[in-house]
Amino acid sequence: MAFEVAYPRIVKGRRPEGHTPRAPRYRLTWDQPTGGFACAYFGVQGKPLGQADESDFLQAITELLGQVNGPQATEVMRCLDGAGYQNTMVVAYWSTITGFATWQETSGFRSWFDRSGSDGGGLGLWFEPFVSHFDRHETIYSEPHYNVGLANLPGTSIRSMTINGYFGAARDRVVLSAIDPLENLLEVPDPRVTLSHGSVAHVRVALPHNTTLLRSGQFWEDAGPEQRDDYIETMKPKLERGMDHLAQNPTDTGCLSLRMTVNLDDDGQERAETSTVAVFHSLDHLEKWAASHKTHLDIYNHAIKMNRHYGADREVVTWHELFVLQYGAVFEYINCHSQTGMMSYGRDISV
Amino acid sequence: MAFEVAYPRIVKGRRPEGHTPRAPRYRLTWDQPTGGFACAYFGVQGKPLGQADESDFLQAITELLGQVNGPQATEVMRCLDGAGYQNTMVVAYWSTITGFATWQETSGFRSWFDRSGSDGGGLGLWFEPFVSHFDRHETIYSEPHYNVGLANLPGTSIRSMTINGYFGAARDRVVLSAIDPLENLLEVPDPRVTLSHGSVAHVRVALPHNTTLLRSGQFWEDAGPEQRDDYIETMKPKLERGMDHLAQNPTDTGCLSLRMTVNLDDDGQERAETSTVAVFHSLDHLEKWAASHKTHLDIYNHAIKMNRHYGADREVVTWHELFVLQYGAVFEYINCHSQTGMMSYGRDISV
Repeated sequence: MAFEVAYPRIVKGRRPEGHTPRAPRYRLTWDQPTGGFACAYFGVQGKPLGQADESDFLQAITELLGQVNGPQATEVMRCLDGAGYQNTMVVAYWSTITGFATWQETSGFRSWFDRSGSDGGGLGLWFEPFVSHFDRHETIYSEPHYNVGLANLPGTSIRSMTINGYFGAARDRVVLSAIDPLENLLEVPDPRVTLSHGSVAHVRVALPHNTTLLRSGQFWEDAGPEQRDDYIETMKPKLERGMDHLAQNPTDTGCLSLRMTVNLDDDGQERAETSTVAVFHSLDHLEKWAASHKTHLDIYNHAIKMNRHYGADREVVTWHELFVLQYGAVFEYINCHSQTGMMSYGRDISV
Repeated sequence: MAFEVAYPRIVKGRRPEGHTPRAPRYRLTWDQPTGGFACAYFGVQGKPLGQADESDFLQAITELLGQVNGPQATEVMRCLDGAGYQNTMVVAYWSTITGFATWQETSGFRSWFDRSGSDGGGLGLWFEPFVSHFDRHETIYSEPHYNVGLANLPGTSIRSMTINGYFGAARDRVVLSAIDPLENLLEVPDPRVTLSHGSVAHVRVALPHNTTLLRSGQFWEDAGPEQRDDYIETMKPKLERGMDHLAQNPTDTGCLSLRMTVNLDDDGQERAETSTVAVFHSLDHLEKWAASHKTHLDIYNHAIKMNRHYGADREVVTWHELFVLQYGAVFEYINCHSQTGMMSYGRDISV
């Protein structure tokens, strides 16, 4: 029995009356009642980032995450950012907020981060953690058989659903949306951080209430040549055009941070698996782009076409997980270039 | 119809089997579904705190709180703290987290706080805000007819309940407790703040996940001489002994901050209404004191005795509201003495 919560709806849902999705889709369920969970992205940055520096970072983070109350699932990814820096990151998932909060204070991470960020031989370090109540997230998977992201947590299952196939379905899947419009009433911010000269900047960014984080992924490791070629030649360029549009128009789109990452295997080799990690000023901003912008419609239409064409034989897995963050989330950057993640919307606390 | 949420219980409840409370008690309910709400304490501090300084502070805060997205309920209180400083405070309640989060960024409060705290002519300023999901709070009132605290919010009602009259009832009333032990696995901290000399300290305290905040109140404004005298001569000293024990043994009891406050009327005169605002390292710590310490048993037994004696004619109202805070709450202090609130468990960010 999956854990389900539903509030009496007072905010109008988006599902059109009588809607039946044309394509089967799946979502994460929790086998046991869960109040919430946590996720954190840990990154290192260099231009270039040498292989030894990357390995040292991964070893240090892996050791820290191995301490008591460490995460139940991790992945390693790499990304070349818009400023030409390589960022290598670990994303970690905790089944409970208590576990994450305890780990953060007892693992030695905090002192390691402060120290390494300042003395790291010119490398940047960043830390983007957040916690989420059960009612503030949603997921979707094109197939039920591939576990990634949150779905790597023990005690989760991927099950079929019918809240999909219309614009606004993601919102409807966020349980809290039934009683809360999930608005961010603040203006989309302008970049404001001013880096101090002659010292290593340590920037804190307090994310506004209802800031929305999306991790949207693609997995074609198991695809045969035909579907792999279609993915690489047709779908991937469409995705990249969409992501470029968002990355280059932060104020217009409300997409304030965007990383296109590729997963690494245990030997540090790139897998046939990517995900985009994006921070939107609000769920409204994400929805506006998804529902109306040509770059997203191109992606959406091609995905539907391929699903219809291959049906149950579809070998490319697409998925996403989305979090509408509650007041209190803080991202941190030490010695990073000012376009890193959400850094330009924060405040330098090193001065 | 009140908004009710219940999770399938996986953590054992505390209610003894077959328990029926001997005294009627009441709790807050929300008329409409609500995801969460917010509360903030705004304080000024001086030794002494002159009447003009107190008035200036209250006028400034009142004006700031009157801005768009301000709170739906406020009270003004005064407290003489353990170091002999007078603290005057406004407690403000917001019906939505979005309202509070928006107000904090758009009202001008932030720049006023930073500026006034540094240039305030030697006065201290403090700001203790938090947000709470619906499932992380509980309330109890001895009578249904007096609105105070959260109960001043529009859209709330005080209704009778039966989850009371046994140790652990407060926990059972926290909806999330059915599926989460609400633990703080960190050690009770030692005071650690080090104030910089020669500059105005600005201390931030990140409260651990599941830190528990209790506001516990007494109202005898409408009591006749007999019950008023009993309250003042018998109950009040017991309460004060209990609070003194907590305040003087923070590390043993886990009660890290405690203020005994008295409410002020519109003319700044003290009312026959008090409340203690206390921060506990965890709900466990609060429960341990409540269930086992003589000072609390004295309070509890006298309250029960008076309830039995006067029944429906009881004229002294007692109540509390409790919040088990999620990861992310931050309290701030500027130019305060180091024993203020949670300040000694924070970090000076002015250096």
